[in-house]
Amino acid sequence: MPRAADVIKFGTFVVTSQVFHLTPLSYALVNLKPLLPGHVLVTPRRIVPRFNDLSAAEVQDLFMTVQRVSRTIERLFEASALNIAIQDGIDAGQSVPHVHAHIIPRKKDDLSNPDAIYAMMEGEDGDLGRQFQERDARAQLNSFEQRGKFPAVDADENRKPRTEEEMMKEADWLAKEMAKDAEKER
Amino acid sequence: MPRAADVIKFGTFVVTSQVFHLTPLSYALVNLKPLLPGHVLVTPRRIVPRFNDLSAAEVQDLFMTVQRVSRTIERLFEASALNIAIQDGIDAGQSVPHVHAHIIPRKKDDLSNPDAIYAMMEGEDGDLGRQFQERDARAQLNSFEQRGKFPAVDADENRKPRTEEEMMKEADWLAKEMAKDAEKER
Repeated sequence: MPRAADVIKFGTFVVTSQVFHLTPLSYALVNLKPLLPGHVLVTPRRIVPRFNDLSAAEVQDLFMTVQRVSRTIERLFEASALNIAIQDGIDAGQSVPHVHAHIIPRKKDDLSNPDAIYAMMEGEDGDLGRQFQERDARAQLNSFEQRGKFPAVDADENRKPRTEEEMMKEADWLAKEMAKDAEKER
Repeated sequence: MPRAADVIKFGTFVVTSQVFHLTPLSYALVNLKPLLPGHVLVTPRRIVPRFNDLSAAEVQDLFMTVQRVSRTIERLFEASALNIAIQDGIDAGQSVPHVHAHIIPRKKDDLSNPDAIYAMMEGEDGDLGRQFQERDARAQLNSFEQRGKFPAVDADENRKPRTEEEMMKEADWLAKEMAKDAEKER
């Protein structure tokens, strides 16, 4: 979606291939480990930790983007509702110090306990910082491995994040569907 | 805070005395039963259920208001972080069909389990619709009672919502502090 020349960072992590929507001040990205299908993030392009660090223009662009993205996500994932949430600061559960809004599509009885989504956000499965660190560590190990320096690392299927290819495929699909919805609005 | 002539509604509920900040398209109100001290709501003046029902002007005004309110709330309640959350639709836990953003000030170790705030939002203590219904039923009973038609209702101290007076006092305080912060920004 972004031009090949762009490198897009989420905090200190490169997320270029996960980005499916770019605006002048914000972007939207798919998750390494969505808590539910269609769980995506919308974030300002400028890397600042707190919501109150954002300028008026950034706040406006961010939530207009949340609105447009949530419309497409709700349609594609056949959801009837959405959780929209910002963990604004470490003591509110933020794990990557770069403002981001979670958009999580919901449907009736999608979780045996509807509260669970929040515990998931706060728990290990929602720890974005750790997931990105693991991803980067894995990539580094793989590159050592190819040079014959390290043995293969056992992949735990349950904890395995999605591959770059899986995420790029989803990002491409979402980008196309966002364009369709933008066309309809005209 | 609002002029005496204004009647402000949150969904079908009259909340005039709880309102501490009014903008052209949004307002902020204190809670009957805050989940943590300083837990407030910001909502558009127009009563619509879903985030995607809001116009661009409403989205912008709503989140500029969230930003201003959250700054004052974080300062007054000596918080280090905030949860900002919209339960957008019934299947995401929304109990009053009127778009609203929760702002919940957080500090280190404020809850023995940090996840608990979300379970609280989704549980009975976070069921705003029920709380307002109880409040209105209680007011109706009290008015019958004063006419000698009903016996007094036992108040359960644990479940007792704050009184109008308590909420008005907090709303007045927050309105004054919001004005101070607005003054500083000039």
